[in-house]
Amino acid sequence: MHWARWGDPAAEAPLPEAARGLVELAFGPAEEHPTVPLAEVRVPELVLGDDLLDAIRGLVGAEHVHTDHETRVRHTRGKSTTDLLRMRAGDGSDAPDVVVRPADHDQVAALVAWCSEHRVALVPFGGGTSVVGGLTALRDGFAGVVSLDLVRLDRLLSVDAVSGTAVLEAGLLGPRAEELLAEHGLTLGHFPQSFEYASIGGFAATRSSGQASSGYGRFDALVVGLTVVTPLGTLDLGSAPATAAGPDLRELVLGSEGAFGVITSVTVRVRPVPTVKVYDGWRFGSFVEGAEALRMLAQTGAAPTVLRLSDENETAINLAKPDEVGGASGGGCLMITGYEGTRGDVDLARATATVRLMEAGGTRLGEEAGDAWAAGRFHGPYLRDSMLDVGVLVETLETATFWSNLRTVYAAVAGALTAALDGDSPLVLCHVSHVYETGASLYFTVAAKQRGDGIAQWAKAKAAASDAMVAAGATITHHHAVGQDHKPWLAEEIGPVGVEMLRAVKERLDPQGVLNPGVLVP
Amino acid sequence: MHWARWGDPAAEAPLPEAARGLVELAFGPAEEHPTVPLAEVRVPELVLGDDLLDAIRGLVGAEHVHTDHETRVRHTRGKSTTDLLRMRAGDGSDAPDVVVRPADHDQVAALVAWCSEHRVALVPFGGGTSVVGGLTALRDGFAGVVSLDLVRLDRLLSVDAVSGTAVLEAGLLGPRAEELLAEHGLTLGHFPQSFEYASIGGFAATRSSGQASSGYGRFDALVVGLTVVTPLGTLDLGSAPATAAGPDLRELVLGSEGAFGVITSVTVRVRPVPTVKVYDGWRFGSFVEGAEALRMLAQTGAAPTVLRLSDENETAINLAKPDEVGGASGGGCLMITGYEGTRGDVDLARATATVRLMEAGGTRLGEEAGDAWAAGRFHGPYLRDSMLDVGVLVETLETATFWSNLRTVYAAVAGALTAALDGDSPLVLCHVSHVYETGASLYFTVAAKQRGDGIAQWAKAKAAASDAMVAAGATITHHHAVGQDHKPWLAEEIGPVGVEMLRAVKERLDPQGVLNPGVLVP
Repeated sequence: MHWARWGDPAAEAPLPEAARGLVELAFGPAEEHPTVPLAEVRVPELVLGDDLLDAIRGLVGAEHVHTDHETRVRHTRGKSTTDLLRMRAGDGSDAPDVVVRPADHDQVAALVAWCSEHRVALVPFGGGTSVVGGLTALRDGFAGVVSLDLVRLDRLLSVDAVSGTAVLEAGLLGPRAEELLAEHGLTLGHFPQSFEYASIGGFAATRSSGQASSGYGRFDALVVGLTVVTPLGTLDLGSAPATAAGPDLRELVLGSEGAFGVITSVTVRVRPVPTVKVYDGWRFGSFVEGAEALRMLAQTGAAPTVLRLSDENETAINLAKPDEVGGASGGGCLMITGYEGTRGDVDLARATATVRLMEAGGTRLGEEAGDAWAAGRFHGPYLRDSMLDVGVLVETLETATFWSNLRTVYAAVAGALTAALDGDSPLVLCHVSHVYETGASLYFTVAAKQRGDGIAQWAKAKAAASDAMVAAGATITHHHAVGQDHKPWLAEEIGPVGVEMLRAVKERLDPQGVLNPGVLVP
Repeated sequence: MHWARWGDPAAEAPLPEAARGLVELAFGPAEEHPTVPLAEVRVPELVLGDDLLDAIRGLVGAEHVHTDHETRVRHTRGKSTTDLLRMRAGDGSDAPDVVVRPADHDQVAALVAWCSEHRVALVPFGGGTSVVGGLTALRDGFAGVVSLDLVRLDRLLSVDAVSGTAVLEAGLLGPRAEELLAEHGLTLGHFPQSFEYASIGGFAATRSSGQASSGYGRFDALVVGLTVVTPLGTLDLGSAPATAAGPDLRELVLGSEGAFGVITSVTVRVRPVPTVKVYDGWRFGSFVEGAEALRMLAQTGAAPTVLRLSDENETAINLAKPDEVGGASGGGCLMITGYEGTRGDVDLARATATVRLMEAGGTRLGEEAGDAWAAGRFHGPYLRDSMLDVGVLVETLETATFWSNLRTVYAAVAGALTAALDGDSPLVLCHVSHVYETGASLYFTVAAKQRGDGIAQWAKAKAAASDAMVAAGATITHHHAVGQDHKPWLAEEIGPVGVEMLRAVKERLDPQGVLNPGVLVP
């Protein structure tokens, strides 16, 4: 992962020529916004003394304890646009003191106990892809900050082919997990945009949702068991596919973002690797008409494996093909339907959905549009970096609501973003990428001319959008989690009694408050 | 509901003649075990003073506050066999002092606050159908015990036809909820064996699962929102179909059995009333072979709306037709498949499942066997009472596990029950009635010659079965909840850290510990 951009450093590229013209048309002349060299990033003085560092070295081995400048920088914050802007400007003020790479569950347990005993803040680090400030521990009142990098917890611990489950260690990144499962003919089917760099533990801790969620389910729905290290001891959950043995404590760990404990392994539902994958493009006259078609598919049990719908703006910009941004658009709204499974299952599902989408007013565009989406499905974040390079602020945010409220939330959030960025030539795009029987997600992409360092500018827009979501009765996040950034709105969403439930669990499991302090719990 | 038996008092009946012969063959000569008259049931002295009772009357109106003997008896315990045995013997020692029937959410809130302030234990009472000791508050340390009967919270508050959701008050019983939804062409599709007498709030508080769970989902999966009164204030949850806004607090309320708060309304997913319902019978050579067929259906997405499989013993006894118990059995194992939906959906699902079940070695028995099951689906508990009348102890217990562990758990629990009742002519029957991609439930029915009052005899068998479940890695309950009866095994299942999570929430939300004391939290 690039230290100040998304993804593979080798993929760093200037804005494609086709896009550059459109960008200048929309946002005015490009202004170069270079990134400071890595060596010039300013990190705080290391406050953990040698005695404490030696104790950590004793727990995991000296070669797995890192205090060098580059490793500290690489474990500073996540990949939100604000995170990138800060890093590009050389602000590494949230860097941890030390990066520790335990070998296994037992070493994690030893570290958690030690941090709790010595009041050292501990930030679990999987892929480092948080976009909500989930990796930035508050330093106040702590002896120092440890970044607990789970990269060495990278094993497929077991496969139960009969039950269709597998136990994956938390530090496994998406591609490696799929590779290991594929050796057994299995797949997790979890492909969020962050897939190439995000970790299994992170998927669970943040309630991630993949692009094929209609078919495979959200990550939280794939989890059947969890092993979690807390300062109080280890928690092992998941004794059955379903149970009435009290509240479902797995659902308290899912979404807990390292604040209640460190997830060391996850038992997940797995499926046979699909033998066929087909993606179709469809065009609908409007976002409203397309959304009605999505609802009909979801409510009649005919949702394909992948189902997404771009609004008019996003369709026109054609984000599915970053190299062709600004290319000709046929108007209306683009829908992508994807089918994965056996030949028979795919044919049946595709035939069913095709009939229903045509009845719903859709025009079939064929496989080319679908394949273009599939080919570019993980590329969006690279484009953001190229835009930042020329002074165009790009960020995304997302929510979910019930079908009857979808248009209201869509208008309210888009309106709030546009108003907050008034004067900065804001461009607001939106798509639906996760559908349920009762509702759907809305994912917004915003671009605007960057003013100054862009940080305050975006904070204002983000706050306006978040206020609009909560006021409209939608959730503050469908799949990005809470982190530091969404805390005030989480408090509104779950109310004071809900906040007390989170606090009660936090205080009981982590009495010293060392686990990812400042994150999640209002 | 009969005060000492299951269900409609008018349906009270002696054991059918056909069954009587078999029962005497299996358990020896019938011994009449009569029930004491209602008036002779012994209830504890009312300890709540007039000042406190007057305060309660002030909150809900005097006409909704009941301290008469019969009402107290009718709110004593639930409907486990042990509960019935105690009541039949005139033991009403767990009777509440007073039964209070609030009108609405606000009156529930006032009562909860008042009980917390005055250290009066409060037991939420929906349908009174608990079979795990979920309605028996501990009296120690409290000024008295209030049974909070939710019968007046019986409204359908709203319907969102676009999103496919409805808001139901907690006191609605199953049939009335279906009636109200049917006026909108909708159904909840939740039909547990207790359906005719159980309440919406109870379904949520105990994580109930219905006989059509393969099609409609477990009750917890149908819940999208909850309103809950706690001593700390009201909790309103459910801002989206799915969210990454932290842990899912709905999943902490589901299964909380009144220990964290009183559920006053539930927002549920609803579906169009099916226009077609078809039930087929199938025969498989063995329970193992039938279970493999269930697994195949569940893992290929071809599970019908209803899917259940009786083991060899249950098939031979033919519980589906209580009037024909002991009738001729064709051997092997009976499977029931049910399909509900539109004509087109039913035809497609039935055709798919039929082909696969034939491939899996099943023999189609036609609709008669299926219809017989459907006609008798709520009758099982009546038969239990008739058996108790002649000195045959009958009780059920259930669990769930992953597919790879199903045979092990089946053998372990059946073996434990048989061994514990050795000498009492035990008969152990089993069926699978809830299937998931990764596993299934196991539901055991046990009959044995009653020894003495039967209570200690059953306690020994229950403990043996529960030990066997937990030792085999299965859950202590798939859909009956925890109550007082399962607490020790819940503690083993979730471990000490899990127990602390429950305690932390309990202590924070209910600092005086007045909510259903003694239930759920180890």
